[in-house]
Amino acid sequence: MLPFKTSIGLYTDYYELTMAQGHFLNNRHEERSCFDYFFRKNPYNGGFVVFAGLSSFIEMLQSFRFDEKDCEYLEQQGFDKNFINYLRNFEFKGNIHAVREGEIIFPYEPVLHVEGTILETQLIETLLLNILNFESLIATKACRCKLAAGDKTLMEFGLRRSQGFGGINASKAAIIGGFDATSNVYSASLYHLNSSGTMAHAWIQSFNDELKAFRTYAKHFPEDCVLLVDTYDTLKSGIPNAVIVARELEEKGYRLKGIRLDSGDLTYLSSKARKQLNKAGLEYVKIIASNQLDEYIIESLQIQGAPIDSFGVGTSLATGQEDAALDGVYKLSLFNGNPTIKISDNIAKMTLPGIKTVYRFFDEDGLFDADGIAFKDEGDFEIIHHPFETDKQKSIKGLKKEELLTKVMEGGNITYTSPSPYEIAEYVHSRLKQLPNEHKRFLNPHVYKVGITTNLMDERNNLAKQYLKKDF
Amino acid sequence: MLPFKTSIGLYTDYYELTMAQGHFLNNRHEERSCFDYFFRKNPYNGGFVVFAGLSSFIEMLQSFRFDEKDCEYLEQQGFDKNFINYLRNFEFKGNIHAVREGEIIFPYEPVLHVEGTILETQLIETLLLNILNFESLIATKACRCKLAAGDKTLMEFGLRRSQGFGGINASKAAIIGGFDATSNVYSASLYHLNSSGTMAHAWIQSFNDELKAFRTYAKHFPEDCVLLVDTYDTLKSGIPNAVIVARELEEKGYRLKGIRLDSGDLTYLSSKARKQLNKAGLEYVKIIASNQLDEYIIESLQIQGAPIDSFGVGTSLATGQEDAALDGVYKLSLFNGNPTIKISDNIAKMTLPGIKTVYRFFDEDGLFDADGIAFKDEGDFEIIHHPFETDKQKSIKGLKKEELLTKVMEGGNITYTSPSPYEIAEYVHSRLKQLPNEHKRFLNPHVYKVGITTNLMDERNNLAKQYLKKDF
Repeated sequence: MLPFKTSIGLYTDYYELTMAQGHFLNNRHEERSCFDYFFRKNPYNGGFVVFAGLSSFIEMLQSFRFDEKDCEYLEQQGFDKNFINYLRNFEFKGNIHAVREGEIIFPYEPVLHVEGTILETQLIETLLLNILNFESLIATKACRCKLAAGDKTLMEFGLRRSQGFGGINASKAAIIGGFDATSNVYSASLYHLNSSGTMAHAWIQSFNDELKAFRTYAKHFPEDCVLLVDTYDTLKSGIPNAVIVARELEEKGYRLKGIRLDSGDLTYLSSKARKQLNKAGLEYVKIIASNQLDEYIIESLQIQGAPIDSFGVGTSLATGQEDAALDGVYKLSLFNGNPTIKISDNIAKMTLPGIKTVYRFFDEDGLFDADGIAFKDEGDFEIIHHPFETDKQKSIKGLKKEELLTKVMEGGNITYTSPSPYEIAEYVHSRLKQLPNEHKRFLNPHVYKVGITTNLMDERNNLAKQYLKKDF
Repeated sequence: MLPFKTSIGLYTDYYELTMAQGHFLNNRHEERSCFDYFFRKNPYNGGFVVFAGLSSFIEMLQSFRFDEKDCEYLEQQGFDKNFINYLRNFEFKGNIHAVREGEIIFPYEPVLHVEGTILETQLIETLLLNILNFESLIATKACRCKLAAGDKTLMEFGLRRSQGFGGINASKAAIIGGFDATSNVYSASLYHLNSSGTMAHAWIQSFNDELKAFRTYAKHFPEDCVLLVDTYDTLKSGIPNAVIVARELEEKGYRLKGIRLDSGDLTYLSSKARKQLNKAGLEYVKIIASNQLDEYIIESLQIQGAPIDSFGVGTSLATGQEDAALDGVYKLSLFNGNPTIKISDNIAKMTLPGIKTVYRFFDEDGLFDADGIAFKDEGDFEIIHHPFETDKQKSIKGLKKEELLTKVMEGGNITYTSPSPYEIAEYVHSRLKQLPNEHKRFLNPHVYKVGITTNLMDERNNLAKQYLKKDF
C-alpha cells in the first residue's frame, strides 16, 4: 500500500545508475556483494534509536522496477541501450537480513545487510537510506514523547508542517514510536492507523459566537465531541460555554468527550480548566493539550502535574526537530567473496568487513546489558572489544544472548510477515521495558555498550594495514 | 505530474473533514469565505522567504477528489452518508490569488488567498500548508546557498537523508532556489530537472585498486567523468591517479571533467589539489566539493578563496536545517461576506480581516523599499502603519508600486501558465537583485518593512473591540 505509481526505480541518486552501468558494461555486475546499514550517532543527543521503515522499504523494493517511461527517460539521459534493456527486466533478487522493525538499536551496529549482485545491492542504496533513516528518526522522536507522556494519550498533528510528502511516512512512524492516533487521514487509510480530530479556530470564527459554534458541533457529533476552548478567552468564555454544552449533551444521554487547549500556559490553564469542569460535575471530560509540544515540554508538564489527559504533537514530531535527519549509511562489506573496508583518517569512520550479525546480551534481570557484533558464522565468543578503543574489553561469558538479525528477504521474496504499525509499537514497548532507564534519560544518557568480537577486530586490523599511511 | 494516485482528498487533517461535515449538515457549507496564507517568522533567522510550491499545490488541487475507495474509508470512519455523497462529486471550484512563485516575501503578508464556499476553502487547508510551507522552506535554504556560492555551480544531493517522500518536493524546491542540478532521478524525471552524479566510495572499494576503478569509470564515461579522490588518500593517491587518468583521456581526445572531494578540510584540500592539477597542465579539470555543506560553510570557503568550482549540498538543504518547518498558517478572513479576525492575547497573532492584496514599493534605484497590505479594492493610500506598533508610520507617497497578488485560479480552473522550476529560479534571481543587500545578510539581517493601510488598521481595531477584555 504505497501512494506511488507502480515502478519506482528512478527513486534513486543518479550515481547509483552510472555505477550500475559501469559495472554492467564491465561485465562485473553480477559479482556477489554485501552492504551494511548502520548509523553513527543517536539523534536528539539521546541514548537509542527505534528501528523503523523496514516494512515500507521491503514493500517499495517490490516496486523497484523500470517501466517503459522510466527507460525512455534514461535513454534521453544518454544511458547505454544494453544497460537500459537490462533494467527493463530488473527485479531485486537479493537477500536481506535485519533486526525486527521496532527493535531498540545503537550506533555502529549493522542492523540490516543486503546480499546480492553488486548491481542490485548498490542500486537500492538511496531508497533504503531514504526510508530507514527517516522513519527511524520519527519513530525515535515519538518514542521519546511516549516516555515523557507515560500512559497519557498521544496524537500526531503534524501534516501541515511536515516536509511535503514526508508527512506520509511521518504519521506511520509516529504510531510505531508509541502514538495512539494521527490527524493525517491519508496515512491512516494507507496504513490502517487510528485518525482523529474535531475543530479548528476557523469553525468558531465562522459562527462569530462560541456557544453557537459549540452547540452546532455537539449536535452533529454528540458521541465524539471535543471543543476547542481558546478562541476568545479560555477560562471566561471557552470553559463556561463547554460546560453549558456538556449539560445539554447529558440531557440527550451523551457525554462531552473533551476540551482542547491550544495556546497559553498549559499547566496553568489545564489546572484551572480541570477545577471548573470538576466543579460542574464534569470529571469525565478529558483535557487535550496542543501547541508546539515536544518530549521536553511534555516531561515538564508531567513533572508539574498538569491535569492533561492527551497530548497533540505536531511540527517537532513530524519533522524530528532538533535533528532533521538520522545519519544512517550503507557501506560495502563484501565484494566478490572478499571482505572489504572503507579506510578513513578517523577510525570511527572505518567500516567493518564481511557478513556480520548482532547479538544482544542480557543481565540477570533480563535487561539489555550489551550488544556484540560478530561474523555471521564465527560461533561462540566470550569477549567483546570497544569498536575503536579496542583495549577496552567486556566479558559476556555466560550471559543469555539473542541474535537480532533474521532473514526478511531471500532471492527477492519476502520471508517474514510484516506486522502492522500498532504491532510494531507493541514490540517497541516490550523492548523499552528491557532497556535500563539510564539509556532513556533525555539529558546525557548513559552510553550503551556495543562491541566487536576478537575475530572481527583482527580482520578489520589486517585489512586496514594494507592501506596504512606512515605520515599524516 | 505527481507521484500519487488520482484522488488525494484524504491528504488532509481529520478535523477538516469533521468541520466540513458539520457545515454540510448544518446547511451552511456554501457560505462564501476567504482564507489567507501567511507566515510569521523568516526561517534561519534570515531576512526573507522565497515563495515556492504554488504550481505543485495548484496541480494537486486538481486531484483533490474522493474516489470510491476514499468514500468507503470515510464510511467506515462513521462519516454521514449524505456528506460522503457530496464528497463523491467534490471538486474545488474556488478562486485563488497569489504572488508569483519565486517571489521574495516577508512575514505577515497574505501572499495567497482562497475564496469559495466555507467547505471547499476549509477542506484544502492541510494540503495547501503542507506544500507551500515545505517548498518555500527549501527554496529559501537553496537561495541562501546560492547567495553564498555566487556563480559557482550548486548540486542537490539530499535524497538519502531527506524526510522520506519529502525528498520529492525538496529537490524541485532546491532548483527554484537557485541550484543547477539534483542527484534525485525521480524528481528530475517528474519535474524536468537536470540530474547528475558519478561514483560513490563503494565503486572504488569494489576494485580494491583506485587507479583501476578510475580507469574503468573513465572508459565507460569518457565525456562525463568526475573522479572521487578521497577514498584512500586525497593528495598522495587520489589526485595522482586522477592525473594519470586525465592524461589517458587526453590521448583519446577527451577531457577529465572533474574531481570530487568528500571529506577533510575543503579549503586545504582544494588548494593543494588545484596546484597538483595545474602543475600537470590540467587547469580545465573542475573541483567539486561535498560533505555536510550549508550556506555558512560555503560562505566561509568562498571568503577563504577555496578554488572550488562546484558545491554538492545534501542533508542540510533537503531538510532545511536548522529550521525543519516554515510556520505558515491559513486563517479565515471573511465569512458570509463579513470580515473576520482571530483574537489573541498577543497582538502579533491577531489576523487581518477581509479580502486583501499586497503592494510592493520601490525606491528611486528600483530596489524594494517596503510592502503594504491593503483591502483589495481600497484604492490609493499614502501611508502604511507598522502592523502592531501602529504609531510607527511610513509614507509611500509617490513611490513606484506593483501589486503582487494576481489571480491563479478562478472557479477551480487554473488561469495562469505555471512556469518551470528553472523559469521560477530566473524570477527569484531577478528579484534578489532588487532586494537591498542588508536583507540578504545571514547574521542579523535588517528587517524589511511591511505595513498595513489606515483602513485595514481601523477595520481590525473595530473588530477587535468586540472581543476586548477588560482584565488580563
